[in-house]
This record gives sequence, structure tokens and C-alpha cells, in this order.
Amino acid sequence: MTVNPSSALSSQPSAGRTSGVLSPVRIAVDCMGGDHGPSITLPACQSFLARHPDAELVLVGLPDALKPAEGWARCTLVPASEVVTMDDPVEVALRRKKDSSMRVAISQVKAAAGQPAVAHACVSAGNTGALMAVARYLLKTVEGIDRPAIATVMPNQKDGFTTVLDLGANVDCSAEHLLQFAVMGSALVAAVDGKDNPSVGLLNIGEEVIKGNEVIKQAGELLRAANERGLINFHGNVEGNDIFKGTSDIVVCDGFVGNVALKTSEGLAMMMATFIKQEFTRNIFTKLAALVAMPVLSQFKKRVDHRRYNGAALLGLRGLVFKSHGSADAFAFEHALNRAYDAARHRLLDRVHDQISATLDSLPPGDQDSGSADVGQAA
Amino acid sequence: MTVNPSSALSSQPSAGRTSGVLSPVRIAVDCMGGDHGPSITLPACQSFLARHPDAELVLVGLPDALKPAEGWARCTLVPASEVVTMDDPVEVALRRKKDSSMRVAISQVKAAAGQPAVAHACVSAGNTGALMAVARYLLKTVEGIDRPAIATVMPNQKDGFTTVLDLGANVDCSAEHLLQFAVMGSALVAAVDGKDNPSVGLLNIGEEVIKGNEVIKQAGELLRAANERGLINFHGNVEGNDIFKGTSDIVVCDGFVGNVALKTSEGLAMMMATFIKQEFTRNIFTKLAALVAMPVLSQFKKRVDHRRYNGAALLGLRGLVFKSHGSADAFAFEHALNRAYDAARHRLLDRVHDQISATLDSLPPGDQDSGSADVGQAA
Repeated sequence: MTVNPSSALSSQPSAGRTSGVLSPVRIAVDCMGGDHGPSITLPACQSFLARHPDAELVLVGLPDALKPAEGWARCTLVPASEVVTMDDPVEVALRRKKDSSMRVAISQVKAAAGQPAVAHACVSAGNTGALMAVARYLLKTVEGIDRPAIATVMPNQKDGFTTVLDLGANVDCSAEHLLQFAVMGSALVAAVDGKDNPSVGLLNIGEEVIKGNEVIKQAGELLRAANERGLINFHGNVEGNDIFKGTSDIVVCDGFVGNVALKTSEGLAMMMATFIKQEFTRNIFTKLAALVAMPVLSQFKKRVDHRRYNGAALLGLRGLVFKSHGSADAFAFEHALNRAYDAARHRLLDRVHDQISATLDSLPPGDQDSGSADVGQAA
Repeated sequence: MTVNPSSALSSQPSAGRTSGVLSPVRIAVDCMGGDHGPSITLPACQSFLARHPDAELVLVGLPDALKPAEGWARCTLVPASEVVTMDDPVEVALRRKKDSSMRVAISQVKAAAGQPAVAHACVSAGNTGALMAVARYLLKTVEGIDRPAIATVMPNQKDGFTTVLDLGANVDCSAEHLLQFAVMGSALVAAVDGKDNPSVGLLNIGEEVIKGNEVIKQAGELLRAANERGLINFHGNVEGNDIFKGTSDIVVCDGFVGNVALKTSEGLAMMMATFIKQEFTRNIFTKLAALVAMPVLSQFKKRVDHRRYNGAALLGLRGLVFKSHGSADAFAFEHALNRAYDAARHRLLDRVHDQISATLDSLPPGDQDSGSADVGQAA
């Protein structure tokens, strides 16, 4: 069966409808994004469809590239004539390539006047700056949100996930922005992980209230106030190691700090993996040891496999957009699709809207500035 | 042989004398600092003395606590009547406990008018905020340095070390401060690791010059200018993962970001170690695999053993002070002593002084503010 892309969504999000799951879920996919494009996105889509009988996909890409997907059930193919490359500046993605697969995919989650959106969520492995700028330009932010944020999950020692935001969309944040991130992160974790009242930690350089710079101290006050009003569940200050301890469900920080924490973790994990490999391949004896230890090492590798955590949410927009790592393989890209599916299915958009409204009605508004340093000028 | 602490240093640092090594090297040790105090510092000192025939120690602590060291060769015992605890606020360490082992140990590296200092370097595992504040108050900063910084090393994939600063002394930095960190870090690596012209990376959220917030962009300009004048070897922007790749010898960042990067790394390393242990102790088969893999795993563990990287330098003061991790065991504390010894032996103080003078003569001065948010008011 091929779904007509112009048909109305079978279930259109509307404010306040946060109970019950959405079904079917329709996801728009930028098939051209990332380092590998359709050679990994299409196999990932095929596998995803097989595992999710109530999912539908809107595949966007160059017509030639989409040919393998012709005739797939629960799929619509939408042509685009251009591709945003990983190196394209934001301006190019935003002003010149107006028929890019990225832009067309994002436009599928935009509701026009009186017209519901075609898809419930969009996934792209394209370059982050361009994706954020185009998504922000096309979809606009939710009322009460000054700046969208990027949220991802990292594994923790409790065998769960810690959701961290922002990861690079906002290099300078005010205390109010950090509060907004806390609210959006809470909605995300409640929706996707099904946790009621998830706890929020404020990333700092010590647990004590007096630690940190001025913005962090002010953010601490706002978060405590929001906690007292029952709007969020504020744990208090956390430190970098708490991300992996799983001290709080959510860790809030500005985009510069979050990006450094994420990249530092990636670097350390890669170094440790390299060291383990080097030690086990050093000589014939270590190679034999590797053979014996292989099942255990595989189990370990599985637990820390970053591909399982692929799929960062762009939060605060009037539409659900998920960003896959550019270097994702099919396994990783399918995980990004899963995350988008879970978020749409549990009506993340409505939840963010409701939670933001409730919070901002009782707290001072943000600075209403025009945007982040990275994408603001372009949008 | 017991050295008289009031005797002049056999070799007193003076500006410009950066060639040749210093010998003997005398180090003052705050034996009471850290979670375990003398039970780990004294065994570490004993082992250190055995390995360094030209080293002398000035052991500072409560008289009772120092009893085991009575009669040790190349050692002087200096009594102190108070101890700064790990929880003591900066104010207590600075204003009330004026005869603390920490303060007395630091005062050993302070040259009085016409009088050389007793020791060439000082090591303490005491609480960081107190140590920085007391050191800054007693020793003052080097001319041309607005704020001292904390520098440590992290292992990298090239089987070397990456030196990272600042790690928490300064939560808000200007571009000029970051330049000063670059210059001090270069002097440290040249002195301790013997690298001529070590490369400096500026920690950012992307390699491109246009990335980052305003302070980072300005710092990039200052660092490029210093590079063009041949004052430092500026590699350019680096990202969090570059710390462990070993892309540059030194990574410069503000204290908030550096602290988060360090703690995040500690957290991830601990989680991975826990996971490996859990997998290898899961059942009888995995335990057998662990037996076979043990030599390889030990080798791996050795390479990533954080105790080998213990000993952070407090840079920019008119005296060498090294900070050991509070939870250090004797093995780790001895490494901190080693680092202090190497720095003193290679005349780090003179090198910082010379390099700072050369740099600041040809570049705009810093903002000459009174200090960091953490310790400024107290000093």
C-alpha cells in the first residue's frame, strides 16, 4: 500500500491531547542526509517498517536514489531536486537549496493554515547547523520557547539513559533558557521513556548551590522555584560524572558545555576501545585470550554501543525533528527512527506544549531574543 | 641526614635561568591533606625518596601524625597545629586556620624579602578551592597573569598525554585569560615533558574559526596573533574528542568547561570499568574467561589508570604548587610528587615567567581583574 502524502494525518496532534498513543505514526525521512545517504537510510527504513506494523514512512530524496524503495508498503516517495551536503554552510541550506531533501522532509511535519501536517516526525542525518536552521525557519518555535535545544541520551551506570540538553544549538544561554531546557527535557523523558516526573540536574562544577558562574546560579534559583511549584522535579546541581552515574534523569547545560561533554565522552570511549583492541591483538597469546573473552567483550561492547543512543531530538519547535549522527550506519539510523517513532507515538509535541504553558504561566518569561549565535542570523 | 628547613635552597630559581636541571630538588608536602591523610602521604613520600636520590622533602603535619617519618633521611619535619578538611569553606582555610598544614606547606615555597624559599615545590591533596585561595594569597600571581589556572594531563591515543587547563579555578574567562593559559600551559609542557614548542588547541564546538561564543572567537584571534609572532604554537580549534586523540599537546578552555570535561571523562571511565567487571563476573564461564584474559586486561587497565595522571599544577603563582586528587592512594600521591619534582627540576617557574614576559610584551594585557569568581573575594 502506498500512502498519498497529501492525505491528512490519520491522527493529528492538538494541544492537550497527551493521553493515549498515536497510531499509525507517519515519519518523514531525509534519505540523502549523512555521510552515506540512501545506502544506509533505505535499509534502515526497510528494517524499521518490518518492526513497526503501524508505522508509515515518507521517503524524501533524489528520484534516482529512491528507486530501490518503489513499491514498498506503507511508504510514500517524495522527490527533492537538491541535497544539503555535510559541509554546506547554513546560508546555503537555508537560502539557496530550497528544494533540498532536508527541507522537503522537514516541511512534511509543518501544519499549514487549516491543513494538518503530512508526517508526525522527521528524521535526518544531515549537518546539524543546517538542520536546526531550516527546521527553525520552517516550523518556528513553540510559544514560550526562545530557542530550540538539541537533546540526546547517554548510557548510565544504572543501565538506563541520561538525557542531556543542550548539545550545541545554543552557545550562550541565559538562566531562563536553561529553565526552558529543563521543561522540554522533562516532557521528552516523560513521553519517550514513560517516566512520570523525571528528575532534572543542573550541570555545574560542584554540588553546592554557591558553585558556578552567575548564569548557573540564577538558573539554579529558577529551577528551585519551578520545583517548588511542582512544575519540574529538580534534583539540584550535578557534575560531569553524574551523567554516567545516572544521578538525575535529565542533565541541563548550555550548548557549548553540552557539546564538549558529548564529544569528550566520544573521544574517551573511542580511545578505550582502541586500547582494548590493541591489547588483545598484541601477540598470539593475547589473541587466544581474545577468543576466549569474545562473548564477554561482545556483551560489554553492546552495552556501550553508541549506535543504540543515536537520534537527538530538536526540542522546542512546532514539529518533531530528530537528528541522526552523520556517520550513522543502518543499525544506528534505525535507532534514530525508533526514537522519532516513540516521541510521535507518545505525543511529545503536545506534552512540550502543555508543560511549557503550565511552567511559563507561573514563571518569568525568557529574554525573547532572536535566536542562538549559531543559527539565529540565518533564520 | 636531616635538612634544616631554614637553610637556603641549594639552587634558587631566578628569572632567565631556564637551562640545565635543578639538583637537589626540595619538595614541601602537606601530609594531612586528602581523604586519607598521613596513612597514604607518608608511604608515598617514603617510596618517592627511594626513587629520587637527589630529592629532599619537607613534611608538614600534626606532630603526632608525622612520628612515623622521624629519622627519615633527606627529610625535614615541620609541625602545623591545624588541618584544612575537605569540606572547609575557603574562608575558614584562609582566615581562621592560619597554622594549617596546607598553609605551612605552601609557605615553604614562598621567597621572603632577600630570603630564598625553603622548598622548590609544594604538594597537597587538600580541597582545591582552599588550596588555590591560600596559594594565591600567600604566593601572589606572576606579573602579567591575572588568574592562576589548574592544569592536569589526560592520556591520549598516541600513548602520550594531553595537558588541559583550566580545570575549575576560573568559571568565567576572558579571551586574554585563555591566552595566558596557553602561554602557561606551553611552559609547563616544555618543562615537564621536555617538548619544544608544544602545540596548543582551543577547546571549541567545531574546528571552524567562526564556531563558538564571542569569548572563544576573540581568544582564537589572540592565539593566532601570538602564533604569528612565534610566541606559542597554535594548532587552532579542537573539540572534546581531540583531548583523547592527542590532536594538540595542550588544550585550553575556561574552568567551567574544563571541569565538566574532566568529570565527564572520570564518570565514563568509571562506568566502563564497572561494565567490564560486571560482564566478567556474571557467571562461571565469564569468570573463566576473565582468568584467561587477566594479563591483557591488566595491561589495558594500566594504560588508562587515572592514578598515573595524578598531580595537577596550579600555574601562574610565584611558587610551584601541585594538587593531588583528594581520594589518591599512595601510588597516585607518589605520581603527584613526581610531577612536582619534574616541574621544579626543569625550572618551570622560570619558564613560565620568561614565556609570559615575552608574550605579554608584545600583546595586549589582560583585564587585570581582581580574581576568579571562586577564590577572588577571599584572597
